[in-house]
Amino acid sequence: MKVYLSGEIHTDWRDEIIAGAGSLDMTFEAPVTDHAASDDCGVAIMGAEPNKFWHDHKGSKLNAIRTRHGIENADIVVVRFGEVYKQWNAAFDAGMAAALGKSLIVMHGADHQHALKEVDAAALAVVETPQQVVQILEYVASGKLPS
Amino acid sequence: MKVYLSGEIHTDWRDEIIAGAGSLDMTFEAPVTDHAASDDCGVAIMGAEPNKFWHDHKGSKLNAIRTRHGIENADIVVVRFGEVYKQWNAAFDAGMAAALGKSLIVMHGADHQHALKEVDAAALAVVETPQQVVQILEYVASGKLPS
Amino acid sequence: MKVYLSGEIHTDWRDEIIAGAGSLDMTFEAPVTDHAASDDCGVAIMGAEPNKFWHDHKGSKLNAIRTRHGIENADIVVVRFGEVYKQWNAAFDAGMAAALGKSLIVMHGADHQHALKEVDAAALAVVETPQQVVQILEYVASGKLPS
Amino acid sequence: MKVYLSGEIHTDWRDEIIAGAGSLDMTFEAPVTDHAASDDCGVAIMGAEPNKFWHDHKGSKLNAIRTRHGIENADIVVVRFGEVYKQWNAAFDAGMAAALGKSLIVMHGADHQHALKEVDAAALAVVETPQQVVQILEYVASGKLPS
Amino acid sequence: MKVYLSGEIHTDWRDEIIAGAGSLDMTFEAPVTDHAASDDCGVAIMGAEPNKFWHDHKGSKLNAIRTRHGIENADIVVVRFGEVYKQWNAAFDAGMAAALGKSLIVMHGADHQHALKEVDAAALAVVETPQQVVQILEYVASGKLPS
Amino acid sequence: MKVYLSGEIHTDWRDEIIAGAGSLDMTFEAPVTDHAASDDCGVAIMGAEPNKFWHDHKGSKLNAIRTRHGIENADIVVVRFGEVYKQWNAAFDAGMAAALGKSLIVMHGADHQHALKEVDAAALAVVETPQQVVQILEYVASGKLPS
Amino acid sequence: MKVYLSGEIHTDWRDEIIAGAGSLDMTFEAPVTDHAASDDCGVAIMGAEPNKFWHDHKGSKLNAIRTRHGIENADIVVVRFGEVYKQWNAAFDAGMAAALGKSLIVMHGADHQHALKEVDAAALAVVETPQQVVQILEYVASGKLPS
Amino acid sequence: MKVYLSGEIHTDWRDEIIAGAGSLDMTFEAPVTDHAASDDCGVAIMGAEPNKFWHDHKGSKLNAIRTRHGIENADIVVVRFGEVYKQWNAAFDAGMAAALGKSLIVMHGADHQHALKEVDAAALAVVETPQQVVQILEYVASGKLPS
Repeated sequence: MKVYLSGEIHTDWRDEIIAGAGSLDMTFEAPVTDHAASDDCGVAIMGAEPNKFWHDHKGSKLNAIRTRHGIENADIVVVRFGEVYKQWNAAFDAGMAAALGKSLIVMHGADHQHALKEVDAAALAVVETPQQVVQILEYVASGKLPS
Repeated sequence: MKVYLSGEIHTDWRDEIIAGAGSLDMTFEAPVTDHAASDDCGVAIMGAEPNKFWHDHKGSKLNAIRTRHGIENADIVVVRFGEVYKQWNAAFDAGMAAALGKSLIVMHGADHQHALKEVDAAALAVVETPQQVVQILEYVASGKLPS
Repeated sequence: MKVYLSGEIHTDWRDEIIAGAGSLDMTFEAPVTDHAASDDCGVAIMGAEPNKFWHDHKGSKLNAIRTRHGIENADIVVVRFGEVYKQWNAAFDAGMAAALGKSLIVMHGADHQHALKEVDAAALAVVETPQQVVQILEYVASGKLPS
Repeated sequence: MKVYLSGEIHTDWRDEIIAGAGSLDMTFEAPVTDHAASDDCGVAIMGAEPNKFWHDHKGSKLNAIRTRHGIENADIVVVRFGEVYKQWNAAFDAGMAAALGKSLIVMHGADHQHALKEVDAAALAVVETPQQVVQILEYVASGKLPS
Repeated sequence: MKVYLSGEIHTDWRDEIIAGAGSLDMTFEAPVTDHAASDDCGVAIMGAEPNKFWHDHKGSKLNAIRTRHGIENADIVVVRFGEVYKQWNAAFDAGMAAALGKSLIVMHGADHQHALKEVDAAALAVVETPQQVVQILEYVASGKLPS
Repeated sequence: MKVYLSGEIHTDWRDEIIAGAGSLDMTFEAPVTDHAASDDCGVAIMGAEPNKFWHDHKGSKLNAIRTRHGIENADIVVVRFGEVYKQWNAAFDAGMAAALGKSLIVMHGADHQHALKEVDAAALAVVETPQQVVQILEYVASGKLPS
Repeated sequence: MKVYLSGEIHTDWRDEIIAGAGSLDMTFEAPVTDHAASDDCGVAIMGAEPNKFWHDHKGSKLNAIRTRHGIENADIVVVRFGEVYKQWNAAFDAGMAAALGKSLIVMHGADHQHALKEVDAAALAVVETPQQVVQILEYVASGKLPS
Repeated sequence: MKVYLSGEIHTDWRDEIIAGAGSLDMTFEAPVTDHAASDDCGVAIMGAEPNKFWHDHKGSKLNAIRTRHGIENADIVVVRFGEVYKQWNAAFDAGMAAALGKSLIVMHGADHQHALKEVDAAALAVVETPQQVVQILEYVASGKLPS
């Protein structure tokens, strides 16, 4: 199976999942997680913009080449909401995944429960930790529950 | 054309658009905007839940019957992000609209520009006011620019 | 909205829903509920079959013209499981509705809960009575909760 | 070709088919067939639920990640109905397979013929034994009939 | 429902069906049944062709505007094979209808049974007369069997 | 049927077609044909841009709300290439129409034949005059050839 | 690319194409070409039928598992019409291929030109010999014309 | 990822991109770039045509087997507009790519900016040189910006 790891980019949760699921027959894709590169990719390649809106516009579209490929080709989309920031792009990715009929797993802390209720309602699993994602992937792949 | 008005529910922006576009051959749908009813609809009809997660889950799924119909049947989806709250459901709706190939119009203030850059990058128009949405709908329907 | 009422045909639950939702802007479709006609339609029109398998085959395909139209054109599919019989066609309809992305409402008594868990997991609402379906349709259409 | 083996989990019919078709260029997927693990996977990974409905709900959704992948990626979906139990999930899978345009093979005993007539009517083959499924797979792959 | 009447154009079977189903809430489309107009429409409007292949090519594409609209918009496609001629366009239409998931009704005499077995296998009903088509449409619309 | 009239905006060919086909049961959509409004709509509603690229970008996206609706909802897409200008948007619309399976009619003079060969190859009819389009629409609707 | 070779089964045209295109990066699928096996596969595996219609029905559905897989997975569908027989299944396959947007190549002799005009009109190439199909496949794969 | 390189065929821009992106896990497809072969392929294989329209028609359809495969299977479609010629086929390809939801990269000089505004508006990146395309592909694949 192919798994896309969307959302928060400031902790190493992706590494934990990829390491934990290392023995499974699964492949992982993710957005560019270098925050500076992600913000500036558009103008770095296609030329500077004095207006911040178009600076961001160029970059966001370039990133969309990668993120949409990741979501559209995934069997499972995991979306993590961290403790801080607006993270509207994470919710946007979740909406795309839902509309495309992907198996959606949402990861967030208990304090975000009410605000994420519509996103959670579209998910097949709602968890709090990367370890739970690993356990889900192991169960889906092998039918084995965590011991 | 059919327009779905998604997002912020604490100001009367929907009324402004519907009134402003009153003479056009357009129909409008929207989510339930009664905050209390929207939160409690699931348990009110299908029975109380001691756990807030399932309370919200029942309600969010019920609301999804209406919101997904609105998005899936729309030609144009307008998503407004207000000044406050997480509004992840608005970004989620925008992601669904983008994945379904709907014409997306995003409305928000300048202070949200950077945080909404991925959502804006998927839109065919980014505006700040309901009046601009009305002008867009008038132009799309009649080819007339605001005088 | 268009609603398809699938499943059990030995009680008048469809009439209760259609009467209860009479003032809403909704239309209803349903399978042929005359059990004898439904069983014999194929051979009555296309000629007798000595083998019960083909007798049923002819009839089931003829009924599929109506039931698939109903499901494919519906916004909401309500599937009721009664107290008796195998009712595999009801579960089959629910599977079709889920695969086609329809809003699924499942109705059944508490004793069927465990056996229907996969069907319920695909639903946006699980209820026990026709009155609850009417309340859901009213809420979806008008945003009003039952008083 | 890819084959998904859905339905009854209390006999070794899947093993018979996989062994019998071992020399063909076909791959097989199946649901988790460990009944206890399948029932409890949700709460084992995501936390206990006092209410049986939500206990089952968590598990069914987790299992759906695997079963929907299996059905959506299959060329052929084989659904077996055993002698006992309601087996609504088998009929639900058959409905999904039909709606997705998969080649559907249904396996059941003669006593279930009338109750399964709508499911059979959507199938390209209706058989009674795993050996017949093997013969079908051999014929489809090689054009050779059983000697 | 919308019904497309494809195939043989030398008898008045379409008129019989439309007259017989006159009281039902169904609409009918059909190809151009004026043989000469159908053959020459391309060159009559877009200019003569010395080569018969291109003469026919221009006409067939023009006719395809109408026939594909009829098939793609239909709920039910009826295809009649007459006693004479190759009628490959009828089988071609049946293949399109099957691939698009339309409810297919095939009409032909007993002598064509073996040659049409693949087409019949994709149909939900196989009949011999226009009266049987009318009875099917009545049953599908009203649930009433012929008396 | 619904017809979308794409392409050249400096002659009155659309009026000729709409007038000529006035008695048919067909509806027509078209892009905004006021050249100045079409060029400036984006900045007029959403604010000026010093960079011509973004000036045009805002306008083109706004126009896309109307043009894509027109193409996606059409049964027939007519694309006219005039004598002058690059007209890449006309060829772009033709490509969209082809990919969406619309019936494509291309109109152009003989001097553009070789340059438009790929577009013509995707069309169901290639004509030179609005009168020919009217004759095609009449034939498609009524089966009557021009007298 | 993947090529499906549909139609006439009484000459060795498939072998000629597969041999001629042997050095290309293409794979080929075809229906079962053993006429007797193809006719009797259904009853041989699933039990005899006294009625020829159901005898053929069982076989045709079994063959459909293979033929639909071949067509649905192909990039290119080649359909050959031989000199004799009705060959409605060939035209049916061509209709499926056209509706699924496959690249269709039709092969037939000049005497069938008028009767196949609708099928030819949906094709990207119409040829008379297997050698021409080989030349087309070589050109499509390598851009080289026959010397 | 799979990249299709559409458009201008008189410079070696494709070679520059393929060489520059040589170390990435990407595959490239392109149309036949031998101008003479591309123009004459139809008649060379399927027989001469006295009328230039049909000469071109046969060739364009043959080329469509390759180009549509390239576009439909691509994740990214790059379309280059050169300095000369009408290049309507390039814009047509861009329209197909947009309608199919492909990630579109458009390459052209500044003098074509206004004429290509509708095509650019559908793109995720607009660039002037093959080097920029290489930088984009590197960034999309690895997250690394050009140093």
